[in-house]
Amino acid sequence: MTATIIDGKAVAEAIRNEVKAEVTQLRAKGLTPGLATVIVGARPDSVSYVTSKRKTCEELGIRSIGVEFPENVSQDELLARVRRLCSDPQVHGILVQLPLPKHINEEVILNAVNIDKDVDGFHPVNVGKLGMKGREPLFAPCTPSGVIELLDRVGAKISVSRAVVLGRSNIVGLPVALLLLGRDATVTICHSKTQNLAEVCRQADILVAAIGRPRFVTADMVKPGAFVIDVGVNSLPVLNPDGSPVISEKTGKPRTKLVGDVDFDAVKEIATAITPVPGGVGPMTIAMLMKNTLRGAKHAFGLL
Amino acid sequence: MTATIIDGKAVAEAIRNEVKAEVTQLRAKGLTPGLATVIVGARPDSVSYVTSKRKTCEELGIRSIGVEFPENVSQDELLARVRRLCSDPQVHGILVQLPLPKHINEEVILNAVNIDKDVDGFHPVNVGKLGMKGREPLFAPCTPSGVIELLDRVGAKISVSRAVVLGRSNIVGLPVALLLLGRDATVTICHSKTQNLAEVCRQADILVAAIGRPRFVTADMVKPGAFVIDVGVNSLPVLNPDGSPVISEKTGKPRTKLVGDVDFDAVKEIATAITPVPGGVGPMTIAMLMKNTLRGAKHAFGLL
Repeated sequence: MTATIIDGKAVAEAIRNEVKAEVTQLRAKGLTPGLATVIVGARPDSVSYVTSKRKTCEELGIRSIGVEFPENVSQDELLARVRRLCSDPQVHGILVQLPLPKHINEEVILNAVNIDKDVDGFHPVNVGKLGMKGREPLFAPCTPSGVIELLDRVGAKISVSRAVVLGRSNIVGLPVALLLLGRDATVTICHSKTQNLAEVCRQADILVAAIGRPRFVTADMVKPGAFVIDVGVNSLPVLNPDGSPVISEKTGKPRTKLVGDVDFDAVKEIATAITPVPGGVGPMTIAMLMKNTLRGAKHAFGLL
Repeated sequence: MTATIIDGKAVAEAIRNEVKAEVTQLRAKGLTPGLATVIVGARPDSVSYVTSKRKTCEELGIRSIGVEFPENVSQDELLARVRRLCSDPQVHGILVQLPLPKHINEEVILNAVNIDKDVDGFHPVNVGKLGMKGREPLFAPCTPSGVIELLDRVGAKISVSRAVVLGRSNIVGLPVALLLLGRDATVTICHSKTQNLAEVCRQADILVAAIGRPRFVTADMVKPGAFVIDVGVNSLPVLNPDGSPVISEKTGKPRTKLVGDVDFDAVKEIATAITPVPGGVGPMTIAMLMKNTLRGAKHAFGLL
């Protein structure tokens, strides 16, 4: 049996279309959702992420408010700008692109984001509410809620399942685990200190890998029939048959390719469904960010 | 092999003595920690809990600020009082005894407690920080941190263990799970929707039961050699040999006894260590509350 390959691109597109339709309706009433994206410095990966986010805003009719600071901006200046965005009625979501330079305390900046505009869902209040019964946060973090969305659309029964989450980061592992728990899965959180990891993983009906180790999850760690969601994005060199790196003619540098935390080729032979990398969870993050921005706007407009 | 019976009374007394010694030192410098206990109405169990807390404060030299409201107090009046306590420099911890009457929104009241005085540790910010890496909350909830304290004092190795938490309440299950995770246990959270519960529980090196079902955890659900912490407090009628209830001569009512969530007599034969009910986790809650109040005071005095 070969697994269903979960098409994250298609699901993300469907979500973007849903958001766009709602945004269009809001704009017809003179209400325009707005997302502020704040970037400090010019890390190529950060620039690329922020550019995609801004471009997607424009495609969906969401007002994009771009804020750029040089690498050496002071914490106070950045903080003051974030606070102005918090009180700006045109802004319904504030995204501060991480990581920030070392001289800036990330926690201080993120805690300054008003929880009603915390579209990233990283404020401790939103994380706390994610885990607590009867305390729905306004926003769930984008990548984790993208994972749940994919599971739902591929027909995984979360509520009676055993779910294993590999990794406990603030950005993915912990919030995914809390979301799965909120959906009545029996959740186990594994990490670098876990003993007998393969055995624990094999108990999972739903396995979410978010540890950043290329092809770490091998077929012997997966229960036949499981749903496997690969959140890992790792860059590996492309090799020639003799093991030497392939050099790009254009750049003169070794060519790289993206691989996930899961040994896709082997695991797809035994799973019920699996996300590829790229094209699985990746495209979901921005789609869920747009969904969160729409939600923030509806909240601000009194429409929730 | 018979398990070590974990003496929560003795551990709680040791902690109270440690707190008392520190409070005495602070008071010698003219610094007195203070705990405000707020009770609404006169539920007998709530009155009893609050009375114990106030009495313990006095024994340890902590200033006890008692605040009582009638059952029909308005939410606004209660809220205003909580806010005054937040800005009162003599108050370093605020405990609002739960449950509150139905006409009062518990979440609104608890969220009004300044997180620097949230000695109960129930504010979503504190819960969020409990789970997040690199975000130590000022206070961990009392009963859950009492569980960890007992495990530590009885020599359980949390960090390489598999821990199973039965129950996911905001007050015990969820925060215990997050504390164990923070200590590098591999944590599974089980609840009423969990399938094959006995099998999951049997994988636990550390089993924490917090579901409020008398003697629910039977010996076949426990791995030989496990550490078993029983947070349950259930009231059962005392029965005569013929099955009829024993009537108290004093009160004329059926006599009751407290039992935990664990079938103590059977499980103690296979566990390494186990807490009894009463006398296990129970006494820890107030001791940890005193420890938190001391911590809040040291924070306010700039001594942390």
